[in-house]
Amino acid sequence: MSFKEKMEETAKKKESNSVLALDFPFRSPDKRDELLVEAQDVLDAVHPYVCAVKFNHHLVLPLAIMDCKANDIGATNQVIAEYYYAAGFDALIANPFVGWEEGLKPIFDVARRLQRGVILLTYMSHKGASEGYGQTVHDAAGAATAQYVSFAKKAVQWGADGAVVGATYPEKIREIHGILGEHVPIYSPGIGAQGGAAETAAKAGARYFIVGRSITLAENPSEAAKKLCSAIRQGR
Amino acid sequence: MSFKEKMEETAKKKESNSVLALDFPFRSPDKRDELLVEAQDVLDAVHPYVCAVKFNHHLVLPLAIMDCKANDIGATNQVIAEYYYAAGFDALIANPFVGWEEGLKPIFDVARRLQRGVILLTYMSHKGASEGYGQTVHDAAGAATAQYVSFAKKAVQWGADGAVVGATYPEKIREIHGILGEHVPIYSPGIGAQGGAAETAAKAGARYFIVGRSITLAENPSEAAKKLCSAIRQGR
Repeated sequence: MSFKEKMEETAKKKESNSVLALDFPFRSPDKRDELLVEAQDVLDAVHPYVCAVKFNHHLVLPLAIMDCKANDIGATNQVIAEYYYAAGFDALIANPFVGWEEGLKPIFDVARRLQRGVILLTYMSHKGASEGYGQTVHDAAGAATAQYVSFAKKAVQWGADGAVVGATYPEKIREIHGILGEHVPIYSPGIGAQGGAAETAAKAGARYFIVGRSITLAENPSEAAKKLCSAIRQGR
Repeated sequence: MSFKEKMEETAKKKESNSVLALDFPFRSPDKRDELLVEAQDVLDAVHPYVCAVKFNHHLVLPLAIMDCKANDIGATNQVIAEYYYAAGFDALIANPFVGWEEGLKPIFDVARRLQRGVILLTYMSHKGASEGYGQTVHDAAGAATAQYVSFAKKAVQWGADGAVVGATYPEKIREIHGILGEHVPIYSPGIGAQGGAAETAAKAGARYFIVGRSITLAENPSEAAKKLCSAIRQGR
């Protein structure tokens, strides 16, 4: 089963399209043991309401668990992919800006061999995203186009298993969804703490919803995750 | 002392502008213990001939030591920076594509507070680099410009401590050096295994030289590092 199919199936079974971003603020070395316990607690409380968990530097660095947004040269990307997939991760997030040849191709090669997924950044959720993702570039034929449009086309062309588009930009979700169609599902971060609304993102075409701080830092993470599920259901 | 001054001083003292990229190919879990020993051996053999060491996912993932090329949202970048700097690293490499606001600004803020360095990707060393770093973009005034030119200008504007430009593209080093002047030193990877020549990169304006596999995988790493030093001296 491909990563895409696995996501589809898990989302259906769990009746949830929420992806938990297991992110926590910086901790000093003497407080890092607690981090593992806290992360475990949040997972225990929230797992009925999420279909996947996204790890990031937050947990890798202190706990050596995971990382993402690969944007290195091919030889390095290959090593990164081999390690993550060997560690049991089902998918990696990568930045298409790095290009194909000696760039992301080696990640896709490893992913295909191991039946794992590659999700491409297409439009990020923060304010400065317009600087890079929103800039005007010239396509191969010399015509002016938006960077994120060129990334969305690459996601289709390279056979990506997903595309990241910030929930803080629902109009970009709609436009990118128009390019990706049903081939490449949209993963949408930026919900809650960053100001994006799951319902709006769902209406615009997002399939999965990456939520971090508004669950991990909630007084009642389980309740927060449950609420998110119903917001998404209303949007779809 | 700032990171830039520290590099300058160390390079002078060590009579070397080489930065060792401590990269090794993927190892299966049962062979990872050897990796620490090997990395230590290479460091022991090579340290007289290098002024700095650059870690990457290769060693972070199996050994939980380091990482780089930050390109996340500001809140995450801040956590990444806090952890790396708390772990003792002197500088991070980041991708300017992510933009300033809620992007790289938080990394620069943490770096300034802790007197650490931020080095920006400006033109990478691999073939696919032309796809992103070499693309034509529109600047704020709407004029067509090269992406790497816009990145080099940001490196100056944001007060970066260095700019990464691949040794495989000496003509880009020359052009970018023209923009950066003496404010932002150029760190040049891609020497050896990837086909770049230290001498040519040095002549074009690179200040520091990042070398990985042609030292770490050499039969005699010490000899390989020594040779590199003299090649750089000839180029300068």
